[in-house]
Amino acid sequence: MSHNTFGHLFRVTTWGESHGPALGCVIDGCPPGIALSEADIQWAMDRRKPGGSRFVTQRREADEAKILSGVFEGVTTGTPISILIENTDQRSKDYGDIAQQFRPGHADYTYFAKYGVRDYRGGGRSSARETAARVAAGAVALKVLQVLIGEEVKVRGALVQLGTHKAARGNWDWEEVGNNPFFCPDPASVTLWEAYLDGIRKAGSSIGAVVEVQAEGIPAGWGAPIYGKLDSELASALMSINACKGVEIGEGFGAAELSGEDNADEMRMGPDGPEFKSNHAGGILGGISTAQTVVARMALKPTSSILNKRESIDVKGNEVELLTKGRHDPCVGIRAVPVAEAMMACVLLDAFLRHRGQTGGGPHHVG
Amino acid sequence: MSHNTFGHLFRVTTWGESHGPALGCVIDGCPPGIALSEADIQWAMDRRKPGGSRFVTQRREADEAKILSGVFEGVTTGTPISILIENTDQRSKDYGDIAQQFRPGHADYTYFAKYGVRDYRGGGRSSARETAARVAAGAVALKVLQVLIGEEVKVRGALVQLGTHKAARGNWDWEEVGNNPFFCPDPASVTLWEAYLDGIRKAGSSIGAVVEVQAEGIPAGWGAPIYGKLDSELASALMSINACKGVEIGEGFGAAELSGEDNADEMRMGPDGPEFKSNHAGGILGGISTAQTVVARMALKPTSSILNKRESIDVKGNEVELLTKGRHDPCVGIRAVPVAEAMMACVLLDAFLRHRGQTGGGPHHVG
Amino acid sequence: MSHNTFGHLFRVTTWGESHGPALGCVIDGCPPGIALSEADIQWAMDRRKPGGSRFVTQRREADEAKILSGVFEGVTTGTPISILIENTDQRSKDYGDIAQQFRPGHADYTYFAKYGVRDYRGGGRSSARETAARVAAGAVALKVLQVLIGEEVKVRGALVQLGTHKAARGNWDWEEVGNNPFFCPDPASVTLWEAYLDGIRKAGSSIGAVVEVQAEGIPAGWGAPIYGKLDSELASALMSINACKGVEIGEGFGAAELSGEDNADEMRMGPDGPEFKSNHAGGILGGISTAQTVVARMALKPTSSILNKRESIDVKGNEVELLTKGRHDPCVGIRAVPVAEAMMACVLLDAFLRHRGQTGGGPHHVG
Amino acid sequence: MSHNTFGHLFRVTTWGESHGPALGCVIDGCPPGIALSEADIQWAMDRRKPGGSRFVTQRREADEAKILSGVFEGVTTGTPISILIENTDQRSKDYGDIAQQFRPGHADYTYFAKYGVRDYRGGGRSSARETAARVAAGAVALKVLQVLIGEEVKVRGALVQLGTHKAARGNWDWEEVGNNPFFCPDPASVTLWEAYLDGIRKAGSSIGAVVEVQAEGIPAGWGAPIYGKLDSELASALMSINACKGVEIGEGFGAAELSGEDNADEMRMGPDGPEFKSNHAGGILGGISTAQTVVARMALKPTSSILNKRESIDVKGNEVELLTKGRHDPCVGIRAVPVAEAMMACVLLDAFLRHRGQTGGGPHHVG
Repeated sequence: MSHNTFGHLFRVTTWGESHGPALGCVIDGCPPGIALSEADIQWAMDRRKPGGSRFVTQRREADEAKILSGVFEGVTTGTPISILIENTDQRSKDYGDIAQQFRPGHADYTYFAKYGVRDYRGGGRSSARETAARVAAGAVALKVLQVLIGEEVKVRGALVQLGTHKAARGNWDWEEVGNNPFFCPDPASVTLWEAYLDGIRKAGSSIGAVVEVQAEGIPAGWGAPIYGKLDSELASALMSINACKGVEIGEGFGAAELSGEDNADEMRMGPDGPEFKSNHAGGILGGISTAQTVVARMALKPTSSILNKRESIDVKGNEVELLTKGRHDPCVGIRAVPVAEAMMACVLLDAFLRHRGQTGGGPHHVG
Repeated sequence: MSHNTFGHLFRVTTWGESHGPALGCVIDGCPPGIALSEADIQWAMDRRKPGGSRFVTQRREADEAKILSGVFEGVTTGTPISILIENTDQRSKDYGDIAQQFRPGHADYTYFAKYGVRDYRGGGRSSARETAARVAAGAVALKVLQVLIGEEVKVRGALVQLGTHKAARGNWDWEEVGNNPFFCPDPASVTLWEAYLDGIRKAGSSIGAVVEVQAEGIPAGWGAPIYGKLDSELASALMSINACKGVEIGEGFGAAELSGEDNADEMRMGPDGPEFKSNHAGGILGGISTAQTVVARMALKPTSSILNKRESIDVKGNEVELLTKGRHDPCVGIRAVPVAEAMMACVLLDAFLRHRGQTGGGPHHVG
Repeated sequence: MSHNTFGHLFRVTTWGESHGPALGCVIDGCPPGIALSEADIQWAMDRRKPGGSRFVTQRREADEAKILSGVFEGVTTGTPISILIENTDQRSKDYGDIAQQFRPGHADYTYFAKYGVRDYRGGGRSSARETAARVAAGAVALKVLQVLIGEEVKVRGALVQLGTHKAARGNWDWEEVGNNPFFCPDPASVTLWEAYLDGIRKAGSSIGAVVEVQAEGIPAGWGAPIYGKLDSELASALMSINACKGVEIGEGFGAAELSGEDNADEMRMGPDGPEFKSNHAGGILGGISTAQTVVARMALKPTSSILNKRESIDVKGNEVELLTKGRHDPCVGIRAVPVAEAMMACVLLDAFLRHRGQTGGGPHHVG
Repeated sequence: MSHNTFGHLFRVTTWGESHGPALGCVIDGCPPGIALSEADIQWAMDRRKPGGSRFVTQRREADEAKILSGVFEGVTTGTPISILIENTDQRSKDYGDIAQQFRPGHADYTYFAKYGVRDYRGGGRSSARETAARVAAGAVALKVLQVLIGEEVKVRGALVQLGTHKAARGNWDWEEVGNNPFFCPDPASVTLWEAYLDGIRKAGSSIGAVVEVQAEGIPAGWGAPIYGKLDSELASALMSINACKGVEIGEGFGAAELSGEDNADEMRMGPDGPEFKSNHAGGILGGISTAQTVVARMALKPTSSILNKRESIDVKGNEVELLTKGRHDPCVGIRAVPVAEAMMACVLLDAFLRHRGQTGGGPHHVG
């Protein structure tokens, strides 16, 4: 991955700051001949859009994704797709202290240390606002996957843990994910989570979370040894999402406690080819897809922009106490769900295109 | 990351199969004028070398790293450093069943599905043997870091969890890591771990593990938004190690349960500049180093080459039962310690060179 | 070079079609802390702008370059600089035949053969209009070079041959280049060229040209073996410009006829270091800059959009005769001058950043 | 292109110095399932091998290419192919003056200026000996192209100009190319060239040359806008060859003097699809192949290692006179023929794999 570009054959370059006039992405390498309209993107933008509930930042953005190039007469032409998203609610204001002080736990200090200059307005480039551009790219990737591979391709995520509360896996209901403000797949957890997060929100505090994202309908053979492993690409992609501190594939850290007998997924022949008796691997072996569901999880730290005082320093080296005023996001993990989906869709399409380039594209079948 | 290459300015390309005549790497972009000899590499090779104890594979390899280019009169010239490691204990034998059957939990099936052909001898390219080349590259990277940044740069790892047994962090002793066959930092755990792993070994089974790797002496400012984040690069690099199923930075998945107050590291001014009151971040904020210790962990699954029968299929589509004969590795996680160190050293040097390229190289100081 | 991106540490991604709503570029890796405004870009845009004389296309575009990101309080922040240029004179019209027919000598046919779909409006992505985005990026690169290296850095080009007429090198006057509609450096040629090109223009025909571009003030040491040679990067960059069919460095094809004695540039020590007695090499030896003026030339074919009938086929496979109506550009080579300058500036800055990354940045001095 | 790597999906990394123990390449991304043996490579090595006639360097090398990885049971596995070529005739000797002095026209000075250190033995990394590794890679690429596309794919070159003497295009005979020591396609020129180059050789001098390389059997649709144009990739690849000072596609610099009517290749429908009435374009339009023969030329300067005294300086800054003793190569251009073929084969295969990745691989047909 380059600094502001990810992917190899399906390459996404994002740009823009939280409080600049706009942000966007340029998608290079999108296959030609795919029907694509702004509506194919907007549904995903709406999913990530701020202001949807009291549990996320109250910033109001229409987040309209405009296609400026690469689509002609309703289909992709194989040339770069430039997508523009205007910022409308940047709230021009006096940034005062924020301009000089480093919020603990933020990129404020490290951007300064690296560049000697930073756009302090709303976090500048380090703002989670950047992820709007990823979601647009992810929607394109998903559309392409569904056209090239089939409608059975699904890439979808859920919030499986909010602070100390885990969704019960036995209750998992994909339909439920869209019905609550948490993308929580467990109907039984929603009320509890509401009360829990309301408490945190009212205290001016914040909390972390865990997101799980799954891809179904992915054939065997995508991904590649050794440094282009599908799980390596996913890890890089998810870890690039703001606030991410950990990534797991399949059993993840739980695999450390398993025996070889328990962890390896045994195989049988089914009517349509190889079948696995379990999916501890999370759909990836040796960095290459197995045709099982690809399963990844990411841990998100709590946002450090909280309404309570914290010790820090400023650019002059003075010790200060600071608190973040204004819009408050008690759990940034929530809106990471559509972002994680987008990253997974992009990684998968890129893996497919590379696989098709090197091998012709099909899986080899046993028998 | 490309398929068999990682890094951007410090680029490492590895090649070779488990049972081929040799394996190696080509390092491109190594800074010139650095004193470098084979001895600078061999100590690290010896650390990863198989056959060192009964807890790792009994394959016997000298693992001598020969420098074939890029070093002249004892110093690097800035041109590619080619390193060759001969395979001497490949054990030419009848592979019989292995040639046709897919070991559950291995890359056997996915390599076949992707390529339609695979080198089944010892896992071919998917063997952990490939990591010998990484260790050679990592030793070069570490040497360069110590010359360019200072002797205070340390990159070192330990096995912090063996199956269900965690090393006690309160007992952490770096000296101890080299004194036991597990790279365990907790002297109090060693005897227990020996008994535990002997039991698994004798049962013909295997177990997972968790490795932690730390880098000290890294200045602030390395790494870059958004897709070139230092943690993103680390995640990709660690996840590319055989058997890795999870990666964490700093608090990792634990951050999901923390409040904003508890997770963010407060800052004070110390005599030499900014200081942090804690290091939940693991030395990285916004993808850029903070000058604190960089801390990463990785989860490794148990090897699936076990001595007990498992259900699987063969390339003809027949259902089979198979077990792995011969050399047995009860915990592949152990030897992942020097590999993780190597990957971190490479990622850090690459981040430094990119930082130096874009900005000139220094951190900007407060005050 | 990737498909729509060039450069390694200073990376430019361009997007947009001739008749889309806008086009632009995203610059990633621009060093931070450089004062940059739209005025630093606009002068270069104006130089390439269509409609400036009767010898270039009559399309009217303001070509205003708007900076959407990456600059804060007047300085670059190290984050991506997104530049937008709106298309205002696309002339919505009935494309009729052009939509179905392939102009001989154009990319019409090959875009169709590759993608199965093409934006036929004004050539779509293959239009020279794309080069507006390059010029914007080049102006940024030049500004950065002048800040980081010094005001003595100059990157400037001229049209040295128009069809069969060559500018006399003995008359070379850089001041003159801006004073005539051809970027011709030879005052004595201008009147002749006007008459010559008027004849071609009135005949509805077109003609090729040769552009030379020079960079002064470049220190020794930039560029790198073997596939990252400065001349290799320049060749790639210049050859990517529309209509380019040849690239030379220094003596270029003339070197084929020289003896070793005549071609090699002898060296002496001057007051400020090594001096060369000649510059047949064009400022590059072994792919690395010598500190002499870097000299490159490119040949441009005549535009094939002419007002005279030519034989071709259409997408149905019918044989047709076609001619291009409307705006006519008798010599596309003219406006290639600022584009070649832009590409050279980008390549040089990228080479510097990579050199600084790998080595620290300075040349090593003899003595 | 990276420093010592070229290609995108078919990636070749070369390493090694003129007088080191060995040199070689690692090919990453070679499609799997291709029958490949060392014999498929050796014929090409032999073609480039030094010592074949009195007109090239008298160094004696067997140039045996050994495959160390990536091929199993006679077919490629999709994993990296490492090829090793041992140096056997490095002539360990006292380098005396050469170690301190910069040969004019060589990379001696620029390597020093860049790195502060250089391997002065036989030019180190800058030696044309590096091209042996390219030829090995090119042979693999050609084999793959012939398997994947068809036996009709031919990539072959010739020396079309030796100093001031051009081969007569009307006499072109591909059979003749292998029958004379110059790769000259014109039987009528051989005797003249022998006498001409003997004179230069005996005078201790050297001369430049022009190489032309052609690829037949390439379908339409390979290559891609804008910075990944097939001609841009070819220009970069050819310009990376030692001594190259110019690259042309099709008409090349001659196109500057042509009218639009004369330069554009008209199209008709033939029995098998579109046909062109001429090939001024050299088989590439808009950076994408047309299915005509791809034609490129490169100019090579005379080697500057001549037996006559030249003025220069040394690393201490002393002015010196130097001449090169020992083996003498009166025309480095001759052995550039197989190197140019190799680079073109690699570029074409890479373009095909990328095309297949992005689009599925086929050309779209008219009608």
